[in-house]
Amino acid sequence: MIHFRESLRKFEDMHREAIGYINLNPIQRGGILTPEARKALIEFADGYSIYDLSPGLEVDEIPLIKEFISEHLPKFLGADLVRITLGAREGIFNIMHSITKPGDTIIVDGNRHYTTITAAERANLRVIEVPNSGAPEYRINVEDYEVLIKEHKPAMIILTYPDGNYGNLPDAKKLGEISKEYGVPYLVNGAYAVGRMPISMKEFGADFIIGSGHKSMASSGTIGVLGMDKKWKKIMLRKSEKYQRKEVEFLGCELRGTAIATLMASFPTVLERVKKWDKEVKKARYFSRELEKLGLRQLGEKPHNHDLLFFEAPIFYEISKRHKKGRFFLYKELKKRGIIGIKPGLTKNFKLSTYQLNKDELKKIIDAFVEIADL
Amino acid sequence: MIHFRESLRKFEDMHREAIGYINLNPIQRGGILTPEARKALIEFADGYSIYDLSPGLEVDEIPLIKEFISEHLPKFLGADLVRITLGAREGIFNIMHSITKPGDTIIVDGNRHYTTITAAERANLRVIEVPNSGAPEYRINVEDYEVLIKEHKPAMIILTYPDGNYGNLPDAKKLGEISKEYGVPYLVNGAYAVGRMPISMKEFGADFIIGSGHKSMASSGTIGVLGMDKKWKKIMLRKSEKYQRKEVEFLGCELRGTAIATLMASFPTVLERVKKWDKEVKKARYFSRELEKLGLRQLGEKPHNHDLLFFEAPIFYEISKRHKKGRFFLYKELKKRGIIGIKPGLTKNFKLSTYQLNKDELKKIIDAFVEIADL
Repeated sequence: MIHFRESLRKFEDMHREAIGYINLNPIQRGGILTPEARKALIEFADGYSIYDLSPGLEVDEIPLIKEFISEHLPKFLGADLVRITLGAREGIFNIMHSITKPGDTIIVDGNRHYTTITAAERANLRVIEVPNSGAPEYRINVEDYEVLIKEHKPAMIILTYPDGNYGNLPDAKKLGEISKEYGVPYLVNGAYAVGRMPISMKEFGADFIIGSGHKSMASSGTIGVLGMDKKWKKIMLRKSEKYQRKEVEFLGCELRGTAIATLMASFPTVLERVKKWDKEVKKARYFSRELEKLGLRQLGEKPHNHDLLFFEAPIFYEISKRHKKGRFFLYKELKKRGIIGIKPGLTKNFKLSTYQLNKDELKKIIDAFVEIADL
Repeated sequence: MIHFRESLRKFEDMHREAIGYINLNPIQRGGILTPEARKALIEFADGYSIYDLSPGLEVDEIPLIKEFISEHLPKFLGADLVRITLGAREGIFNIMHSITKPGDTIIVDGNRHYTTITAAERANLRVIEVPNSGAPEYRINVEDYEVLIKEHKPAMIILTYPDGNYGNLPDAKKLGEISKEYGVPYLVNGAYAVGRMPISMKEFGADFIIGSGHKSMASSGTIGVLGMDKKWKKIMLRKSEKYQRKEVEFLGCELRGTAIATLMASFPTVLERVKKWDKEVKKARYFSRELEKLGLRQLGEKPHNHDLLFFEAPIFYEISKRHKKGRFFLYKELKKRGIIGIKPGLTKNFKLSTYQLNKDELKKIIDAFVEIADL
């Protein structure tokens, strides 16, 4: 018999756009839950119910969680030690806050996510950017880090692998060699790699790797993974003076909800799907070719090596000038055809992802673009 | 046709202890989802699908979310401005990191949660604790802050309202007057208050208030709310130099998943339930009296003002010495009777919460304790 104000009823019945549609949104394609994760989500729905997995234990002492974090994730990331974070950006901040001092300089790639910058600002760091090569490929040449390292003596360097705009995969291994040569700590931001494709921190010669559960590991989130070389253990995992089990940088423990339950439940599937990465690359290339036949132009590396695709579409821009829906025509026309995920209002340039779409779905999308290009 | 190693199958089929049992775990009673939140959880299960609430907008621009954060939450907390955090502890760190400098001193109550300490350590602060009154009530006398404020000139003071051990509610309003007198920023940690009972930052004369979605606001979490006086806007909500809409201390935006969807969907119910707080206090007092009749002793304030209850139970300790299950007997005997949530292995002292339990459930629990005391 709860009588609340009618104006609040809307919060009780919120809905997603178009469930059942094909969703091309790059930030969503890697976060779709597996059936097992959906079950886990419902099982551990209530706040703090993850404790019921092993009554009486601290969350990070629960055997299943402990095994997951101390055995499976390190192997998966090619790291010595892994911690769960509240997201990729929070993991980046954890590292900056632990290994740098306010006023230090760091060097990052010009294709970095905006949160690399906000994390650096929060840690009071000065940021130098390695510019990309500009249109049409916007490549990061990792050798460009070297001269900047010599000049600025950075406290750390960061590489985004791949970046979220063009889906470019720079030479992370080469940068590992450079980082070793100059003794600079090296972080790979793999928010769009970890969980999608095979990736190994050790093979890159990196000190740290970051991944995103909700972006690429089929978790409901908000959650990230932070892998590190064991030489950083003392600094990154420094303990509280008062609570000797508690790690200060992680405020004791950051895994507390449905995010870890869904991350774990999806993990066996994720482990298998990264093995089929070559098929994802083939699909992305095929899709890119088909769209280019319509007069679109794929920017970023070509041939492309990732499911994140950026297109320039002058023909859609032209149509938008005469279509009654204006610049929203592309969004509306796609939606009419059961497809969402391209940002409403965009026509000239847009991003999408083909990740985990099957042949029939790809064909349906391509057919839709063909029809729309003909409007 | 996924063939993963058999050893990983366990991650795909994880289960909670005893669904359907009465759960007395204090960290869980306020986080049980409402039916509306369960629907929202399933609707927004996939990673980053919260974006589908209003396609094309940034999460914090989505009208429903914006209205929730800028209108309803401030009213609910008695604050001028509210931000979503990744949890209560993260909110405490956000404040410390923004308004103090490394090396500063802060004063906190001796009943504070351990994460107040880890957050302070992460922010490199020196912590002075106001001791409680000791057994049996463990009260915090807020007047004790005054002499310490004079002595240490703290950068901020924190009061835990209530604490998570004894469920004591110190005189937060009086401390507000003291904080004003000495011009010290004042944070109320209401992780066990916000969402359970009426509470107002302004009435307390506080600068900040923190709440926990998964502990007390019927959200699946991990999520917290941070309310503040508008005079802190410039510091707490300082913007990125490069991304002028993005708030640095919150790394751009911290609301990204099922946690916010369930928090919003439960909110209308939460708003109503806090109005019935007097009934919760009555139930807690009744329960305390009934258990004391068996020879248990409730520690903390008496008569008690909160659903968090701490008991000393020498009679159970005595039974544990001769029971074949040893110190696990209480846990096992309660479970046999459909009740969980008291930490396995504890008999001498334990915490529980009566929050949102109905008369029949309370009677069932009391009857179970009566039977067990008779073993």
